[in-house]
Amino acid sequence: MSQKPSIPKGTRDFSPLEMVNRNFIFDTIKSVFQRFGYLPIETPAMENLSTLMGKYGEEGDKLLFKILNSGDFLSNTNADVLNSNELNKIATQICEKGLRYDLTVPFARFVVQHQNDITFPFKRYQIQPVWRADRPQKGRYREFYQCDVDVIGSDSLLNEVELIQILDEVYRALNLNVLVKLNNRKILAGIAEIIGEPDRIIDITIAIDKLDKIGFDKVIEELKEKELSENAINELSKFLKISSTDNYQKLELLTSLLSNSTIGLKGIEEVKTILNYCHQLSTTSEIELDLTLARGLNYYTGAIFEVKSKDVAIGSITGGGRYDDLTGIFGLKDVSGVGISFGADRIYDVMNQLNLFPIQNSATTKLLFANFGAAEEIYALKHLKQIRQNGINAEIYPDTAKIKKQMSYADKKSIPFVAICGEAEMQQNKILLKIMSTGEQQLVDHFELINIIANH
Amino acid sequence: MSQKPSIPKGTRDFSPLEMVNRNFIFDTIKSVFQRFGYLPIETPAMENLSTLMGKYGEEGDKLLFKILNSGDFLSNTNADVLNSNELNKIATQICEKGLRYDLTVPFARFVVQHQNDITFPFKRYQIQPVWRADRPQKGRYREFYQCDVDVIGSDSLLNEVELIQILDEVYRALNLNVLVKLNNRKILAGIAEIIGEPDRIIDITIAIDKLDKIGFDKVIEELKEKELSENAINELSKFLKISSTDNYQKLELLTSLLSNSTIGLKGIEEVKTILNYCHQLSTTSEIELDLTLARGLNYYTGAIFEVKSKDVAIGSITGGGRYDDLTGIFGLKDVSGVGISFGADRIYDVMNQLNLFPIQNSATTKLLFANFGAAEEIYALKHLKQIRQNGINAEIYPDTAKIKKQMSYADKKSIPFVAICGEAEMQQNKILLKIMSTGEQQLVDHFELINIIANH
Repeated sequence: MSQKPSIPKGTRDFSPLEMVNRNFIFDTIKSVFQRFGYLPIETPAMENLSTLMGKYGEEGDKLLFKILNSGDFLSNTNADVLNSNELNKIATQICEKGLRYDLTVPFARFVVQHQNDITFPFKRYQIQPVWRADRPQKGRYREFYQCDVDVIGSDSLLNEVELIQILDEVYRALNLNVLVKLNNRKILAGIAEIIGEPDRIIDITIAIDKLDKIGFDKVIEELKEKELSENAINELSKFLKISSTDNYQKLELLTSLLSNSTIGLKGIEEVKTILNYCHQLSTTSEIELDLTLARGLNYYTGAIFEVKSKDVAIGSITGGGRYDDLTGIFGLKDVSGVGISFGADRIYDVMNQLNLFPIQNSATTKLLFANFGAAEEIYALKHLKQIRQNGINAEIYPDTAKIKKQMSYADKKSIPFVAICGEAEMQQNKILLKIMSTGEQQLVDHFELINIIANH
Repeated sequence: MSQKPSIPKGTRDFSPLEMVNRNFIFDTIKSVFQRFGYLPIETPAMENLSTLMGKYGEEGDKLLFKILNSGDFLSNTNADVLNSNELNKIATQICEKGLRYDLTVPFARFVVQHQNDITFPFKRYQIQPVWRADRPQKGRYREFYQCDVDVIGSDSLLNEVELIQILDEVYRALNLNVLVKLNNRKILAGIAEIIGEPDRIIDITIAIDKLDKIGFDKVIEELKEKELSENAINELSKFLKISSTDNYQKLELLTSLLSNSTIGLKGIEEVKTILNYCHQLSTTSEIELDLTLARGLNYYTGAIFEVKSKDVAIGSITGGGRYDDLTGIFGLKDVSGVGISFGADRIYDVMNQLNLFPIQNSATTKLLFANFGAAEEIYALKHLKQIRQNGINAEIYPDTAKIKKQMSYADKKSIPFVAICGEAEMQQNKILLKIMSTGEQQLVDHFELINIIANH
């Protein structure tokens, strides 16, 4: 009757070691968010499908996990529809709910729904899993965590600066070398205007977003396929070829190329302001103005951010930007927001590859009492109680097993100290402490033991 | 085009204040678990339906949220089945996955699937949401958190003792008065044996589980309906009427009533051992041996636990027990486990009702810098950088709004201190610090400010 157990493809179990390391990332991110005055919210895993559909494009709709209505799920449908093979129609009749696809749309829904209870500017963070019915592949999962931090209800560029400070603090705390890429949608709009194709900004940004991946020639080819005029493409090439590595030099070139675009100059001004603040606040991460950065998404209206690891070749590990009308889709107009999202799974992969996780983690067990029988148990348990009161994670092997087995348990769990208390130690009211890394043994009293472990 | 936003019934959004208070509960529970050497795991929200179906009874199967297969979900089905109106058959053909219903079955699946990578005894905790398509009502949600702690692969009663120590520590840290109820399935089996109905133990335990809710007479009635013999019911009454409030007296009465049942006496012995350890370790929570405690679930084989609040009338806030063959359903035999589950949502309700949440929480913002314009911003930002480096959560109002609006923001966010720095303060390199609770203002330097806030 037994089944061979497995989990759905694209999902993962996390072992204790993986969890301890993942929590190190989450805790670091959380504490930086809190340090800057952001507070957590959580939204349900399930949203109404009407909240989710149409927010992620046609492709996104297909990637939503839909939840079968409970009870008689066929009650809203009929044989004609069922036999029609119109999958979308059937799906929306038998499913009212879906799993959240990102944290941005639920956040917009939250803000609109609770607008009367929220103090604006609203600074919130949200760390929860999201689900996408993507084809699973290396580094791409169907369940993964997003760590979003946003401020909504303030136009000030100080918010953009603060997000860069947050990036900077997080990656310094995680000991990762990163490159922060910065762009501004207004500059992209200015470019579209100047080359005489103001209505084609989306096609243009999607194409130049691919510059990194497919190269200059292919991007030009793609723009030709999209029937951009030859003149526009020639003009656009001037921008794509800006190659200075100095942000201020780039801005100077842009200023001359965009001198006839009000919106373009506004974008340049914003980038300058942000860079100046970062300079004055001595943020340490390298910041690069990257005109090819568009992040595919169409809702950004100002700053666009992306962070890449300098040491591991992997996609972006953080991204975000300013969006002026996210809540509009739910009926709340004219509320501007800006935010970034940390990709915890990719950060984990980078740190794992670079071996950056701390070995001694406050979450793991520091001390194991070996178990030699009933009398010794009580002796050990009483010591343990006080040791734990001193903030030390400690346990007793629950069975009177062979000492070799108990030592092997400590070893596999990477417990650095084992306390051995037999009759001799009990008579002297002492503990024989074994240091697992060296094999060294020391006869100590209760306070010496706590000191040794606390200072380890 | 706008939609009025809402969320699925039975689910909830959590505001920053609710989250801060909920996290206080989660963090307390987590740190106690870790103190006793338990490490976290996580499993996916989605499990294969084959893993979940049949594990929670017929009723449970109905309460599973099923996830529509992505892509052509009709490909495994045909018109005959679709038109048959056999909901279960259709559902299993169009859905392969379901949302997890509890943490116990996924844990059993995890242990079997990863048995070669696990060091036994395996001490794990797991804090994740679960989903049930229950009819929503006050205090019952379709998405809620469970906080499970289990040790698997050890028969020792030290594990039971440890779980009581954990209960004790958690509820002391949360400042809740609780009653710990303890029973043992072997005693219940002994009773069924002694009254001559050894095969009816499930009917008997289900009935006496209801003693609290429906009273003695109705339980007897129910047992008659289930065609338990009159003699058996008379014998059973002797047990149901044991009314001593002293655990050891109860055990003595039981010992005489169960003197002919080996399994019954074994159960008594186990309870005695557990109580003796708790006594020697001076656990502070009141423990009551409660023969009516069965917790409906059929997989418990030894100790059964339940915790109730002494101050708020609400169902159990923690429950659990020993199960000798949980992993058997997935093909791994003879692995005994014991565990308990904390109901975070009910604990929240109890603490909320008793007003037990700490007002000053380390997660919230301690200091707001008012914003008076560009020059003041830089002054404030530089101070903020150092203040945060001292571990203080602090922020600046991002816009140059009216001071009244900025103060109201601090007020609504319960920020205890506001820093006011205009030209005068900047010239003296000082900060005017306003204490929001008293309205008092103080001109301080950077270090005084940090001292005042750190010692608040």
